[in-house]
Amino acid sequence: MPSRHDRTQTIAEGLLTVRIPNMKKEDGKETDVPKGYRFSVAAAGIKYEDRPDMALIYSEREAAAAGVFTTNRVKAAPVVLDMKRIRSSTARAVVINSGNANACTGPRGMEDAEAVCRHAAERLSVPVEHVLTASTGVIGTPLPMERVRRGIEELTGGARAGVEDVARAIMTTDRFPKVASKRVKAGGTEAVLTGVAKGAGMISPNMATMLCFLMTDLAVERKALDRALKETVEGTFNLITVDGDMSTNDTVLIMANGLAGNAPLTEGSPGYESFRDALFELADELSRMIARDGEGATRLIVVRVRGASDHADAKRAAFSVARSPLVKTAVYGRDANWGRIMAALGYSGASVSEERTDISVNGIKLVGNGLATGRDAEAAESMKSGAEVVIDIDLNLGPGTERVYTCDLTEEYVRINAAYRT
Amino acid sequence: MPSRHDRTQTIAEGLLTVRIPNMKKEDGKETDVPKGYRFSVAAAGIKYEDRPDMALIYSEREAAAAGVFTTNRVKAAPVVLDMKRIRSSTARAVVINSGNANACTGPRGMEDAEAVCRHAAERLSVPVEHVLTASTGVIGTPLPMERVRRGIEELTGGARAGVEDVARAIMTTDRFPKVASKRVKAGGTEAVLTGVAKGAGMISPNMATMLCFLMTDLAVERKALDRALKETVEGTFNLITVDGDMSTNDTVLIMANGLAGNAPLTEGSPGYESFRDALFELADELSRMIARDGEGATRLIVVRVRGASDHADAKRAAFSVARSPLVKTAVYGRDANWGRIMAALGYSGASVSEERTDISVNGIKLVGNGLATGRDAEAAESMKSGAEVVIDIDLNLGPGTERVYTCDLTEEYVRINAAYRT
Repeated sequence: MPSRHDRTQTIAEGLLTVRIPNMKKEDGKETDVPKGYRFSVAAAGIKYEDRPDMALIYSEREAAAAGVFTTNRVKAAPVVLDMKRIRSSTARAVVINSGNANACTGPRGMEDAEAVCRHAAERLSVPVEHVLTASTGVIGTPLPMERVRRGIEELTGGARAGVEDVARAIMTTDRFPKVASKRVKAGGTEAVLTGVAKGAGMISPNMATMLCFLMTDLAVERKALDRALKETVEGTFNLITVDGDMSTNDTVLIMANGLAGNAPLTEGSPGYESFRDALFELADELSRMIARDGEGATRLIVVRVRGASDHADAKRAAFSVARSPLVKTAVYGRDANWGRIMAALGYSGASVSEERTDISVNGIKLVGNGLATGRDAEAAESMKSGAEVVIDIDLNLGPGTERVYTCDLTEEYVRINAAYRT
Repeated sequence: MPSRHDRTQTIAEGLLTVRIPNMKKEDGKETDVPKGYRFSVAAAGIKYEDRPDMALIYSEREAAAAGVFTTNRVKAAPVVLDMKRIRSSTARAVVINSGNANACTGPRGMEDAEAVCRHAAERLSVPVEHVLTASTGVIGTPLPMERVRRGIEELTGGARAGVEDVARAIMTTDRFPKVASKRVKAGGTEAVLTGVAKGAGMISPNMATMLCFLMTDLAVERKALDRALKETVEGTFNLITVDGDMSTNDTVLIMANGLAGNAPLTEGSPGYESFRDALFELADELSRMIARDGEGATRLIVVRVRGASDHADAKRAAFSVARSPLVKTAVYGRDANWGRIMAALGYSGASVSEERTDISVNGIKLVGNGLATGRDAEAAESMKSGAEVVIDIDLNLGPGTERVYTCDLTEEYVRINAAYRT
């Protein structure tokens, strides 16, 4: 493994030499990385110029692996391939590219995705069945395989990068790289969980693709890993919405290589809950980053619903508010427009009793028992500063609670997504 | 009835005198109006200044009536009141105001809605049970009842207006008044159907309210009228979407006063189908106007799906495409971005087989059997002129077809809806 203080390196792509600066997280902190993972990036020129657009995550040892994928019926080739490969619950490497989604590319798209994995497997001397792949970018255009092949050669050429470089290489319209890590003590063993993600930032003609790659040096039994990942995604990445569009390419993968030295965790292990909680916190942090970085967004919006008849109703209500373009534009306008929140609750499909509903924004109560409290101006003022707007809704009907992250809707969102293809 | 050529008149509102110009339709044509309906408008100053914001539709004779209302669980007071009143299937008058939705106003809101009807009923000497009401505008603020009362006095003071004046008085952010009419020959009787509507144009902090008032001089038996209205709304107003938000105030009312002199139409009458078809055409025309006038819109988008497994799937698929912010921004960018259409089909919930799907834009085939045809630039060019963009999708799976109207998503939409309350 390279020193985490020495990530500056030179990548040669044809005649182009790109200097990649040391990419720490935005807050300047170093990211903890679990043992036994190596990273590299390459500037293959798939679509973007002068920046890395391919990344490799490589585990020195066979890792238990699990994945969660888009439920869109139109799935990109790498998603279809990974869904098949992940059945073995084992992985050694993930090859990722930005700039081209390899979606809606027919049989050729599948051949290309397979060729990506095969080429990487040969270069890494690992079984092709243990190489996963993910793509994000232009839809309907075949991968430029010559460039991709050169990129893979570079990825596997020995030069190493940091995990933040991976986060940066997979960005499309993301405004900042998304990387987080958690230290965990699971059943007496100190270990690390680290994740990189790219957001539902869409650049014309890209899709809203969410990619996330999670790794740990814990040993986790395959079934327990799968279960923990699915539960985590349900409570984190599946509770964010930027614009309601769902990608053909969404992928969340986790690898657990066991280099921390613990006995493999099962659902009954004493350390399992610590692992699961750390995984949840990690994914929660990454999912907040994705929502905050929604295209054109100026505020993260946290919609919290309680008092719903049941959990399903709480989720319906929270998503209805979080998806409402009227609520999202009101937040952008710093307008504590509770009428739009009330209307979104009303059409959510959840049981709602207007005269029982309470609504607060940033802790300022705007509606009590369905009626205005007259504090709108105060709440509007509170929205003018800070990175987040918290909307609390109490339906006062039952025990259901849920929380959804979203962002405001701005002219910039429209500009980004209305841009001509280049 | 006033001459349709003499709609210019003076309305006195307190000390304010407003001159209302003769308001013909945009195309300059006169609107046919059925016999026995009178219109008046008033500038009550509820929110807007220097323009009429109240309207009265009055039938000289008791009319059969039917209504369709928002399915939002949070319903404005006038909606709740009308839903009760419409059970009698009889109406004489509708009092409408813009500028205040009388929604989320608690028991006082209901008292105010009742007072509006009562005051109008007294002035018109008709039973209060036969007076309906509708409101659109600010939510959560009680109606300014003194102004409203003065407005009702004016509405019932004898001055008459044209049906286009009604269309204009009920506008909020609508950019043009929406009025249409059809001549119909039903079972040997010549008659007229006329409708006025306001769109899902939302001005902060208004709701997306769709109001539509339909009238005819045909006699239609109450059950048949109700059935025809519900079928019509299902096939027209329920197949438009501007931003997916659903108002607390949506209302479609129809009155049939019988002054054309026909024997009341039942579902078995020879003239019933002619009536129903004319009603459908009228509502279709008004619903297109509403979609075209979506806030900030530059294009009407017509999404037509065929070849779906069944009708429900066709509707799911069409709505999924019509609601996609990515598709809507692409149309605004004049980008024939079929990848976004394909993705929206994929997450629609409808059965979709990527390799069978055909997509055309403005008649130019972009996708055949799931693969790009390479004609994107040609299709993009076609989007640069004309008021409409037609997206045709053939899923090639079954007999299901449906058509949905929407509009593009622009920075102007965000600007309008992010504006501070004033």
